[in-house]
Amino acid sequence: MRMYDIIKKKRDGFSLTKEEIDFFIKGYVDGSIPDYQASAFCMAVFYKGMTEEETANLTMAMAESGDTVDLSVFGTLTADKHSTGGVGDKTTLIVAPICASLGCVMAKMSGRGLGHTGGTIDKLESIDGFNTALSPEEFFAQVEKTGIAVVGQTGNLTPADKKLYALRDVTATVDSMPLIASSIMSKKIAAGAKNIVLDVKCGSGAFMKIPEDAEALAAEMVKIGKMCRRNTAAVITNMNRPLGNNIGNALEVIEAINVLKNNGPEDLTSVCLALATQIVSITKNISRDDAEILTKDALQSGKAYDKFIEWINAQGATENSLNFKKADYSHPVIAETDGYIISSDAEKIGISAVILGAGREKKDDTIDMSAGIILNKKTGDKVTKGDVIATLYSCNKSSFESAKNKFLDALEFSQEEPTKEPLIYKIIK
Amino acid sequence: MRMYDIIKKKRDGFSLTKEEIDFFIKGYVDGSIPDYQASAFCMAVFYKGMTEEETANLTMAMAESGDTVDLSVFGTLTADKHSTGGVGDKTTLIVAPICASLGCVMAKMSGRGLGHTGGTIDKLESIDGFNTALSPEEFFAQVEKTGIAVVGQTGNLTPADKKLYALRDVTATVDSMPLIASSIMSKKIAAGAKNIVLDVKCGSGAFMKIPEDAEALAAEMVKIGKMCRRNTAAVITNMNRPLGNNIGNALEVIEAINVLKNNGPEDLTSVCLALATQIVSITKNISRDDAEILTKDALQSGKAYDKFIEWINAQGATENSLNFKKADYSHPVIAETDGYIISSDAEKIGISAVILGAGREKKDDTIDMSAGIILNKKTGDKVTKGDVIATLYSCNKSSFESAKNKFLDALEFSQEEPTKEPLIYKIIK
Repeated sequence: MRMYDIIKKKRDGFSLTKEEIDFFIKGYVDGSIPDYQASAFCMAVFYKGMTEEETANLTMAMAESGDTVDLSVFGTLTADKHSTGGVGDKTTLIVAPICASLGCVMAKMSGRGLGHTGGTIDKLESIDGFNTALSPEEFFAQVEKTGIAVVGQTGNLTPADKKLYALRDVTATVDSMPLIASSIMSKKIAAGAKNIVLDVKCGSGAFMKIPEDAEALAAEMVKIGKMCRRNTAAVITNMNRPLGNNIGNALEVIEAINVLKNNGPEDLTSVCLALATQIVSITKNISRDDAEILTKDALQSGKAYDKFIEWINAQGATENSLNFKKADYSHPVIAETDGYIISSDAEKIGISAVILGAGREKKDDTIDMSAGIILNKKTGDKVTKGDVIATLYSCNKSSFESAKNKFLDALEFSQEEPTKEPLIYKIIK
Repeated sequence: MRMYDIIKKKRDGFSLTKEEIDFFIKGYVDGSIPDYQASAFCMAVFYKGMTEEETANLTMAMAESGDTVDLSVFGTLTADKHSTGGVGDKTTLIVAPICASLGCVMAKMSGRGLGHTGGTIDKLESIDGFNTALSPEEFFAQVEKTGIAVVGQTGNLTPADKKLYALRDVTATVDSMPLIASSIMSKKIAAGAKNIVLDVKCGSGAFMKIPEDAEALAAEMVKIGKMCRRNTAAVITNMNRPLGNNIGNALEVIEAINVLKNNGPEDLTSVCLALATQIVSITKNISRDDAEILTKDALQSGKAYDKFIEWINAQGATENSLNFKKADYSHPVIAETDGYIISSDAEKIGISAVILGAGREKKDDTIDMSAGIILNKKTGDKVTKGDVIATLYSCNKSSFESAKNKFLDALEFSQEEPTKEPLIYKIIK
């Protein structure tokens, strides 16, 4: 078998066999297939696509290219949630305890933030004492005991995906549906959960800008999951504006706790309930309606909050850790005109938060856990000149000017009231 | 400027500016742009193509990426011929002296053979004493004195094309019209002649299998040539069978001499006259009809043969050198059935000749100058069982069996007489 022939076959629009895809992934990881052949291949895939079967085979090949997590000891109730990435997305902090309180096994690995999107691990580390670096033994013991654990990625998971993604990133071959879908799903498959719910974000702050594209990606990932023998579903959610009102690590944990205490913003609460309902439905194999009754009850009864406290206790924090240190400085963003906010570019808002110190521009940057933004007005809201649209928080006073400009640049105003967009576009099973 | 953006722009079907193309070629040659970006770019070009202007800019960028030959001292009568590669193609040996005898300045660099196609330099070196490695000073002095010189490529001509071609060869991005056209034309532009005639081969033994593709490539190269301020024309010729009857270095020189002595096969003579007529027409800016009278006369009067002798004398050989050493062994290929030869795969016939020792499989292989094939029957001919279709020549007796099988594998027989194909499909100016 020669990589040349595999590139040519895909270039000319033919489907690749499992053997050919395995040959590519194995050779690319061991270095016998050079970057320049892999990048030409990815560009051919960009134009010619892949069948469902090819995409599932690529996913499995990447999932099996390195270490995998075996959660089979916990039976069939293991569940995982994945978000395609957004700004102000603290859903894991809420959804995981809701589901765990209902008997789902939430044994999860999460990432750190880079660029305009935050990472769950960073958010958790804003909780004083919270340990995200459990050993495999500690991780399994905690899951066994509490039904919930979230740790940073360890081990050599999906090295093929890591290497290929880095290559795609510099060769303009990222935005290919089968490559995106297989990249995401390979990590989920390797992470071991039997039940997977995907939160596919759609809008200005997400990779998929329009519902049709988000739906296609969601459908593709759900099919892959099923072909890889995982119960998989997807919820397509609106990312035309940040989710909730708080952006920034500690600020987002505070908001998540508010939701768990039945005191959070409506949009965030709704999305979390939708995601948790979907997880509970597929994991326990019950109807969505039945699952929804359970998840709402878990939230309202305080069971979910109790599970959250049990969880952070197990990972080294206490309820006292939730008295977060405030940022040294705050700065209001004042409306300069009257009108409706008709769009807010979540990516630019995310960058504004990074400028304030809430995120990393480069891998080794340190984070100001207290930095971030609290939104008073969001897309669809009416604003009057002089209103405080948002408040910026940072320990670095000199960042406000630039962060404010970036923030205002994200907003678009109009005199006309915009039509209300759905918060959840579709559920795909 | 970033290569990433250039790849993405081409990927999305936009046209690149001269500055962007220059940035790519310069960066690729100096190593600042890695192979994996160049290969992704080439794959994008494979799908999205290039405009005439982009292709001309790419050609110029590659032509100027290394040394260039300045023939301006010889005025505007410098002429070059390029063949897109065929089997049994000895036209340079005939066309160059015809044109030189009519006042065109034939200062030419040629290549060596690799794989199934032969190289002019190898053919010339089968002439005892012929020196293909003239110094630049010797080269210029000979052209000044005789109007003709053919040498091997020296200096660092079109390093961008060399590097890019090697990359395309292993990434399935060779067969892209603008990349093929710019690769060929960059070498011709760098070689310095003011007038360029392209012999675009079409058929089983050529890169372009059908006349429409050959015509498209020819048209593209002619446009590039003109945009680079060279008088350029193309002749599309039939390569569904080898040109002439002799294949192999000394055998081809012998056949070329036969043509120059008005005793050569009709197909080869016709193609050479068509090419020479085109060169004389554009170089001297006279009509094709007038040029044809001149080239026919040059051949019939013996002026072209005299120029050939003057040429080989100038490069160190004598008329005595033309008494070629015969191969040690010969072997007839006998027809096993009656019928018409309806196709002959020139590539396989070329490989058969390589097996006999007439060419190189790898760059450093040595050549048996006497080895090769003389065809008695070609596409369109009627064959009776027992006829000698061809005779194989080699100093290595043990090669006959394998060479014969490959040769017979190239032929297809039928009981029906095939329709006669034109020898010259079209002339594009």
